[in-house]
Amino acid sequence: MGDLEIRHATADDLPAIVAMLADDPLGAQRETPDDMTPYRAALEHLDADPNQHLVVAVREDRLVGTLQLSVIPGLSHQGMSRALIEAVRIHADERGSGLGSQLIEWAIDTSRQFGCRMVQLTSDKSRTDAHRFYERLGFSATHEGFKLRL
Amino acid sequence: MGDLEIRHATADDLPAIVAMLADDPLGAQRETPDDMTPYRAALEHLDADPNQHLVVAVREDRLVGTLQLSVIPGLSHQGMSRALIEAVRIHADERGSGLGSQLIEWAIDTSRQFGCRMVQLTSDKSRTDAHRFYERLGFSATHEGFKLRL
Repeated sequence: MGDLEIRHATADDLPAIVAMLADDPLGAQRETPDDMTPYRAALEHLDADPNQHLVVAVREDRLVGTLQLSVIPGLSHQGMSRALIEAVRIHADERGSGLGSQLIEWAIDTSRQFGCRMVQLTSDKSRTDAHRFYERLGFSATHEGFKLRL
Repeated sequence: MGDLEIRHATADDLPAIVAMLADDPLGAQRETPDDMTPYRAALEHLDADPNQHLVVAVREDRLVGTLQLSVIPGLSHQGMSRALIEAVRIHADERGSGLGSQLIEWAIDTSRQFGCRMVQLTSDKSRTDAHRFYERLGFSATHEGFKLRL
């Protein structure tokens, strides 16, 4: 397999990113890959915030993965910044290839470079394979993840 | 009891906020209320980021509560912004007074005003009272909360 590049996403990447977000048992119910309008607006908000890092993994000119890393300053833990990982997706053709680990390890290294002392994420309780994956990468499921839809 | 004001935190509020962060079974092990230096640096980072809202609840000139609300733009869920709540603390004298609910309801209302369509938070699995509290306020523990210390 060719070399992997991980870089910030651009507007040209949106259709491929949204296709990955939608190609998932949960994502299929909530994305609209036929209409890029809301995603273009969201990308403008992401680009305007230097603490948001929406990235894509690219191999041989194909988008094969994506995640969003958010750097969040805070007072607790003696003024610790933390990083939040959201919206991790690996292209169906690449699942099981180790790309997921590479992408999360990139996020961990990048969080450290930004001075973060914690990386956190939540994973739907139905995604039990993902839970084992994150535990293998050193994460611990120490917390309950609460959500409220508005 | 007097009226409650919820406003952005200032540097003058730091000693009282850190005292609340430390007055907690988990926080006692990780905060340094005798040294404000790391907290002052963190407040500068918070103030520099318009998506971070560190607030205090004030009653009769006394700080009685605090939380941090972070607005996080994103692509998933059709370009949904979400709000993250961290570092919720209620002064020991005010626990059970309904202040916690007022503060979280303020955070939910404010998230809605910022255009967020989800509010999320994680709570240590040992804080079972807090879990019932968040469920009463409409949150669902649908996710596992993973953390990795760097």
